[in-house]
Amino acid sequence: MVAKRYLITGSSGFVGQHFIGFLEKQGNPVTVLGLDCQLASRQRAFKHVRFSFKKVDLQNFAKVKRTLGGFRPDYLLHLASFSSISFSWQHPQLSFQNNTSIFLNLLEAVRQLKLTTRILVVGSAEEYGRVNAANLPLRETFPLNPPSPYACAKVAQELLAKIYVQGFGLKIVLTRSFNHLGPGQKGVFAIPSFARQLISFKKRHRSHGQLVAGNLSSVRDFVDVRDVVRAYDLLLKRGRNGEVYNVCSGTGTPLKGILEKMAGLCGVKVTVKVDARLIRPTDVPVTIGYPGKLKKLGWAPTISLEKSLRDVLASWASSDG
Amino acid sequence: MVAKRYLITGSSGFVGQHFIGFLEKQGNPVTVLGLDCQLASRQRAFKHVRFSFKKVDLQNFAKVKRTLGGFRPDYLLHLASFSSISFSWQHPQLSFQNNTSIFLNLLEAVRQLKLTTRILVVGSAEEYGRVNAANLPLRETFPLNPPSPYACAKVAQELLAKIYVQGFGLKIVLTRSFNHLGPGQKGVFAIPSFARQLISFKKRHRSHGQLVAGNLSSVRDFVDVRDVVRAYDLLLKRGRNGEVYNVCSGTGTPLKGILEKMAGLCGVKVTVKVDARLIRPTDVPVTIGYPGKLKKLGWAPTISLEKSLRDVLASWASSDG
Repeated sequence: MVAKRYLITGSSGFVGQHFIGFLEKQGNPVTVLGLDCQLASRQRAFKHVRFSFKKVDLQNFAKVKRTLGGFRPDYLLHLASFSSISFSWQHPQLSFQNNTSIFLNLLEAVRQLKLTTRILVVGSAEEYGRVNAANLPLRETFPLNPPSPYACAKVAQELLAKIYVQGFGLKIVLTRSFNHLGPGQKGVFAIPSFARQLISFKKRHRSHGQLVAGNLSSVRDFVDVRDVVRAYDLLLKRGRNGEVYNVCSGTGTPLKGILEKMAGLCGVKVTVKVDARLIRPTDVPVTIGYPGKLKKLGWAPTISLEKSLRDVLASWASSDG
Repeated sequence: MVAKRYLITGSSGFVGQHFIGFLEKQGNPVTVLGLDCQLASRQRAFKHVRFSFKKVDLQNFAKVKRTLGGFRPDYLLHLASFSSISFSWQHPQLSFQNNTSIFLNLLEAVRQLKLTTRILVVGSAEEYGRVNAANLPLRETFPLNPPSPYACAKVAQELLAKIYVQGFGLKIVLTRSFNHLGPGQKGVFAIPSFARQLISFKKRHRSHGQLVAGNLSSVRDFVDVRDVVRAYDLLLKRGRNGEVYNVCSGTGTPLKGILEKMAGLCGVKVTVKVDARLIRPTDVPVTIGYPGKLKKLGWAPTISLEKSLRDVLASWASSDG
């Protein structure tokens, strides 16, 4: 059997690293080319994954085309993006243009090179925008109402993907991915930020602490990143061409509840100090997705929220941070 | 009364020229700055319009910002775009990126300069895509399903406009404009192409001719460009912020019927030769809009289809083409 070839954009990021870890665990020989604007902080040795890395500016079409032409991937997992919603509010034009242009560069390269690559394009629950509680959980058929420049680019990506499928015969599957959690996520996101602060109290043997947080009343649908990457591999292989899939758990949890659970696991009592800078202009109060479409392909989340939170805390406890 | 200041992008085009003509006819003193990548073929002298022209690459943000900062328009009519649907199929990336980037450059300039300019953004009936006859005529609330890279950019424009209205307080009104006709339209579009061919038969005193055409079974909702520009001025002044308005007649006419009417007006009999190159990959068979929302602002089309066709033929008869 010839080893399958995976191209991963944004390979150095949180999800990219877990995806490569997933392939390694599968135990089948695969060839992976990771693309990113920066190297992953820790490079690992693999037994089953033949991994190579290339630093590429994905906005440079000539380079993207040369890279794809040289590697000729069976699968393309497109994770790279300017993923910060607040950055998209500060620099709407830059955020929108970059995210749509790297996406179009990849699709154009596949089209012009006449590759038969199966592409997975990662979108966001943000695309749905603010919805009435009556419409929850969100199904893929629900109208999109993107509330940030970041989300607009994700919706544009979906529209353009359909054009490339219908007009040019490309093979593209799309996700709307809900909140991720798991070890390795950067400290700017809510849960790792809680973990970092709680672990720092613990390391200093304090049973009380003042924890800085944003809007704790938000309700989010969290999936462990290890379940997410399993969904992505499944969608790359078995997702229906041109279709969009929610990647979510189907359960909503208030951030407040998550913080309490984490504090409990650490045996630390916290008082919360709200930082107004962590509150977004048009934040969506409740987001819960319906995972039925993805489940029909045989996927289900396997890692409980408590297990995820324990692992997040453990990874911060063992880090130097 | 201080003369109002209009900035018009794409001022040298078909609609831009008619819009300036409309302002002149109104008889109120206005100051107009026209921007385009090319000069209009015929520059006119005006009595009421103080007109100046600037050749600007709208993709150059620094220049766009400098131009807007210098002129400080009351009204911005954004007409400029890569308007060819077939070009967007040949160069999807270029077409999408250009159209969204010039649009974002204008919005960003208005935002950064804190101007109170009222902006009219011209979209397209193409945004609706292919719809079942049961859903006609199309209302603004109908879901969008853009069938071409060109239409994707127009939908992205709408999504981004809403972000700039809700998140940054800009004053933006949007249209979905249906097919235009009228004197001055370029010969690549169906009706002027019929006119050009019919007039050429007539000039050569031929009572019969073979006319080259695309898909004549398409049904379209045509509005005379002189009614369109009147709608645009009304929307600039009275359109509701953040809202989208169909600009259409509410009546569908098959292209075949238009050709027959035009041939009749010329007294020429035609046989049709279908040119496959004029048929698009994902052409929409029937497009009819519902103009009720715009009519509530006091607009109605005033020029009959027959009058429009007569004027189109007359303009080709008097041209050198």
